[in-house]
Amino acid sequence: MNSIEVVLGIDIGGTNTKYGYVDKSGNLLAEGEMLTEAQRPADDFFNRLHTQAENLFASKKNELKLVGIGLGAPNGNYYKGTIEQPPNLSWKYVDVVAALRRWYSIPIALTNDANAAALGEMLFGTAKGMKDFIVITLGTGLGSGIVANGELIYGHDGFAGEIGHTIVDPNGRQCGCGRRGCLETYASASGIRRTMEELLKKPAPPSELRQIDLDQITSKRIFEAAQRGDKLALEAFELTGRYLGLKLADSIAHTSPEAIILFGGLAAAGDFIFSPTKKYMEEYLLNIFRNKVKLLPSSLPKGNAAILGAAALMWKQILKL
Amino acid sequence: MNSIEVVLGIDIGGTNTKYGYVDKSGNLLAEGEMLTEAQRPADDFFNRLHTQAENLFASKKNELKLVGIGLGAPNGNYYKGTIEQPPNLSWKYVDVVAALRRWYSIPIALTNDANAAALGEMLFGTAKGMKDFIVITLGTGLGSGIVANGELIYGHDGFAGEIGHTIVDPNGRQCGCGRRGCLETYASASGIRRTMEELLKKPAPPSELRQIDLDQITSKRIFEAAQRGDKLALEAFELTGRYLGLKLADSIAHTSPEAIILFGGLAAAGDFIFSPTKKYMEEYLLNIFRNKVKLLPSSLPKGNAAILGAAALMWKQILKL
Repeated sequence: MNSIEVVLGIDIGGTNTKYGYVDKSGNLLAEGEMLTEAQRPADDFFNRLHTQAENLFASKKNELKLVGIGLGAPNGNYYKGTIEQPPNLSWKYVDVVAALRRWYSIPIALTNDANAAALGEMLFGTAKGMKDFIVITLGTGLGSGIVANGELIYGHDGFAGEIGHTIVDPNGRQCGCGRRGCLETYASASGIRRTMEELLKKPAPPSELRQIDLDQITSKRIFEAAQRGDKLALEAFELTGRYLGLKLADSIAHTSPEAIILFGGLAAAGDFIFSPTKKYMEEYLLNIFRNKVKLLPSSLPKGNAAILGAAALMWKQILKL
Repeated sequence: MNSIEVVLGIDIGGTNTKYGYVDKSGNLLAEGEMLTEAQRPADDFFNRLHTQAENLFASKKNELKLVGIGLGAPNGNYYKGTIEQPPNLSWKYVDVVAALRRWYSIPIALTNDANAAALGEMLFGTAKGMKDFIVITLGTGLGSGIVANGELIYGHDGFAGEIGHTIVDPNGRQCGCGRRGCLETYASASGIRRTMEELLKKPAPPSELRQIDLDQITSKRIFEAAQRGDKLALEAFELTGRYLGLKLADSIAHTSPEAIILFGGLAAAGDFIFSPTKKYMEEYLLNIFRNKVKLLPSSLPKGNAAILGAAALMWKQILKL
């Protein structure tokens, strides 16, 4: 019997780590999840991950053949196979590839989560067949993966694709990176929350969000209010789209992509975020780029997108795509 | 006797067109120049160009073997081989490759002048051996060519690399492109002139430039004044470097290059422009990119850089670099 070749895709997140075995068409044939527990040593994490992934694999041993491992992680560096100064993990520096080499002699590759998302879209999602596109992940922060000439741009040091830290206004909002006015302080789940905080200081218009405590306001609550036609919530989305559209116009001037794909929590707000983003993106675009660049949603299955992205990193390498 | 393989490099400019035969090491073995005269039909231009280039070649016929043609032109499109809506030529749409195909059956390729400059630096200049870098041409406007993974980024439509039209301030200076606040309205020969116009409206400090007519002020005059220690001229360079540094920090967040190479008239001001640009670039950079990205001058011979760039486009293709 022929076994199916699979890649182990691993998404290391701040709270949870998801993993699964993915075939070359993007089918997730077995999956698991565990707590990252990054307050404990990284070694402990890799021991647990290896044990769990092996147990899962053992149950499918006769059907599957493991040919590679792909990982996505915050601040994952493709060239070095390391995680460096991750923003939401307490590990300072981890040589991920070396850690897994204790057990595996197959190819292993690592990149950051937004780059993995871009590769997932390219192999299995919205960007299938595209050579030039950008994926924007709108989560707590704003991540990005840029593909040009059919290749992910890693840059000289492996850290390319930080559109979330391009500057909207050098005197603007304080960013976690230490600077001011980064795009992710405006266009992200936390960004729209800050926009709403500012809007609530104005006396009008009335809003259901004026009735609840400031610390209860989340991007989800703003979305729900917008669905009910809340004017202030709609204004928050309008402003968020304006900041994002302005900076996406800059990104397009760099790499002239066929499409920009919005991914992640805030992108799930659909038209509330797509419509103003598209409007302002077109308004701020240089004429030669106008009405050319598609703004599209991700088409990866929501819960598994990160595993598929991590696996895509390795599949691209194996299949020489 | 073995003949030397050469590429015909052609730089089509608003006023003059330069051309020359370039070997694979970047030696310019024969060269010529003619008026572009873009107010006359494009056909007339190509007829003259072909005749002159052939006359020049005839004198070296025994030594040289022509293997390809590379062209750089404003709004030159690599994919289509066309010039479209060039900002400083009255031709609206010219199929350049088709025009030359009447006489030549060898490979012909076209790109815009800034992309050609980037390829010139990669094959023959400062960027030799680099896989990730950006060339910024500081002329009347601001052009750019972005190289990532060893390949020039053309983008989906062939128009990538328009850093001059990223936006410093959406309510800023009127740009020739119809929008406001484009980087090239600040960081270019015309941009520093506009900055000086604004500075001259302030009552202090004293400056030799206050003595001359406004329409006599050029970037060259500002440079000469700066060399004599003129405070206002130095302030104009400081502001120009601030705008440029701010937006280069954004560009670095996109492609994380090893170096940014400044090219063209304003770059010839040396430290006056490099020093503030570097200072503000570092100030506005995300921490992971700080003190990593070199800011370098072009090392192509000044008068011939554009011919070498155009020839490099074809040599890269022939040598599969």
